[in-house]
Amino acid sequence: MAYEIDKADLITLYPLATLEQFSRDFLRALGANDEEAAIITDGLMTASQWWHPGQGQGLEKFFRFFRQINNGGIIPNAKMEWVNEGPAYALLDAGKGFGYVSAHRAMTRAVEKAKVTGIAMVGVRHSNHFGIAGYHALHAAKNGMIGWAFTNAKAEMAPWGSAQVVLGTNPWGIAIPRKDTHAIVLDMALTMSGKGMMMWYEREGREMPDSWALTPDGKRTTDPAAAMQGPLLPIGEYKGYGLSLITDVLSGVMTGSLFGMTVFQDESHHDVGHVMLAIDPGAFMPREQVDARLEKLIAEVKSAPPIDAEKPVVLPGEVEFARMEQRKRDGVPLSRKTVDELRDLAQRLQVDFPL
Amino acid sequence: MAYEIDKADLITLYPLATLEQFSRDFLRALGANDEEAAIITDGLMTASQWWHPGQGQGLEKFFRFFRQINNGGIIPNAKMEWVNEGPAYALLDAGKGFGYVSAHRAMTRAVEKAKVTGIAMVGVRHSNHFGIAGYHALHAAKNGMIGWAFTNAKAEMAPWGSAQVVLGTNPWGIAIPRKDTHAIVLDMALTMSGKGMMMWYEREGREMPDSWALTPDGKRTTDPAAAMQGPLLPIGEYKGYGLSLITDVLSGVMTGSLFGMTVFQDESHHDVGHVMLAIDPGAFMPREQVDARLEKLIAEVKSAPPIDAEKPVVLPGEVEFARMEQRKRDGVPLSRKTVDELRDLAQRLQVDFPL
Repeated sequence: MAYEIDKADLITLYPLATLEQFSRDFLRALGANDEEAAIITDGLMTASQWWHPGQGQGLEKFFRFFRQINNGGIIPNAKMEWVNEGPAYALLDAGKGFGYVSAHRAMTRAVEKAKVTGIAMVGVRHSNHFGIAGYHALHAAKNGMIGWAFTNAKAEMAPWGSAQVVLGTNPWGIAIPRKDTHAIVLDMALTMSGKGMMMWYEREGREMPDSWALTPDGKRTTDPAAAMQGPLLPIGEYKGYGLSLITDVLSGVMTGSLFGMTVFQDESHHDVGHVMLAIDPGAFMPREQVDARLEKLIAEVKSAPPIDAEKPVVLPGEVEFARMEQRKRDGVPLSRKTVDELRDLAQRLQVDFPL
Repeated sequence: MAYEIDKADLITLYPLATLEQFSRDFLRALGANDEEAAIITDGLMTASQWWHPGQGQGLEKFFRFFRQINNGGIIPNAKMEWVNEGPAYALLDAGKGFGYVSAHRAMTRAVEKAKVTGIAMVGVRHSNHFGIAGYHALHAAKNGMIGWAFTNAKAEMAPWGSAQVVLGTNPWGIAIPRKDTHAIVLDMALTMSGKGMMMWYEREGREMPDSWALTPDGKRTTDPAAAMQGPLLPIGEYKGYGLSLITDVLSGVMTGSLFGMTVFQDESHHDVGHVMLAIDPGAFMPREQVDARLEKLIAEVKSAPPIDAEKPVVLPGEVEFARMEQRKRDGVPLSRKTVDELRDLAQRLQVDFPL
């Protein structure tokens, strides 16, 4: 994906360890406990190393945390409760705590259960934005399980044939562990693109594909500005609409969170729902055989000749892990604007600001 | 979808009961036992009532059954064995039996298990084409569970960035039960379209959208003929490629069936794999509340005003169930060509031919 921030000269690279330390200090100053600060920092650092500053999944999240903690939308160190449990399922009430934390705990529990039962599903209710879905899926893969993270989100997609937004982009993260190397990680919204990407096209004066979004009166367009108030288009047309609806049933309807047009609307009460699936890749046959068969499939996929000789076929997540290696070495990019705003916030909270 | 067969005057409508009786007789003459004949007939009749003759999912399947039974690809009345089992999972060896039957048994088992464990996953190895994925998902929904049917299929999709086919369309069926009415049923391939649909566009002399398929050298085209030997394009571009890969891991790699470029290539040894998930909608909270919340979400979705006033928003499967009602009344369409070919086959097998 060609998603880069506005101007390269407005970007500064910072050592990962510096950002990590600042993130933990900042979160503790906001009232997060040590475990929460560690989980959220890991999520934000993963996003910062995989993605680009313009995508807003890194330390840019602090501004929303600050607002939501002040308006009661997020409760740091929230009491989270296991309210229901069975052999292969459990439900966590996040108690308006950090979504990063509730989703992480839910996937941890799903993994523990799947080791016994082969597959497990853990729901989360009354939660908040959980960061990037692929991060939670990867948490399962790091523990040897296939992870599938579902969440609902703010309504930005219309049912197929309408232009009125009812359903979210409802992103999925799916991760498949590999022996001795990075997992396959598919992190994707159920829309063709997002408003952030459209804004970037608009700022750059570029036309966007007409498969991304509609005008508010339901017309296809290549003009990002014309579609900014319209609905995002789903992947595969009516198919992505169906997948988004089903995702809202799993993560919103079934868990007891908000869903449809009401979820993620009021910052003081986002009431997001998630569902974490963990699947034991070795449930059906010996794990070593499954691992070897997976590598055989991957070899077939990677051997497919590229259309553009300079762009070899990659696995889902492969570009992101390569970027992560590079940024561990060279530093993690933050936009000048974000750094300036973080400085103000750090001063307000009396947190050391090392950037 | 505007998928209709070539010419309306080449279609005849037959009473459902007549086709059902013929299907059972024909399957028994092929060596299927009573249970197999009943399951396959139900699958074929569902497809015949939901879809169109040109899509080839109805009695057109008999020609392939006949060929595959003769070449050893399908073994009627096959010994199917449960080879592995745990609390929330099981693996069925289909022993080259009918895919319709093995998938049906697998979903039945998944439903039984999910009633106890909340979620269950049943794999099938060494199977054959299972018909339409939505049929198997609906089987779960008819028993009160959310069903999710995965299968791998013949390689027709290239990894994103290549034009060499490695992965299948790998269709999904997902069904969500509703109180007192038809389930939501999403039945979808992970490609934007299929070769059958492209052939119809070609015969009609129509341009197809350039998002459907590539030429063999990897160029986008609106000419169906130019792309007939090229790869089908995935939904959501790289996203659908990732979903197809993951589906092959679940249904092919994990179950011990063929996968990637080898599955579904040799008619005497298709060796397809499936995975059936069943999820209890009431796992997390009382079922009555979940049912009521689902109807609230559906009401929001259906209240979205249509762009075209004559095309109201529909739920996944809604068009198909309406078509089913109509065909139960008016008859089920078969093309004249299919009827003629079935007549020949029936004579050969000395089966009464009532059409």
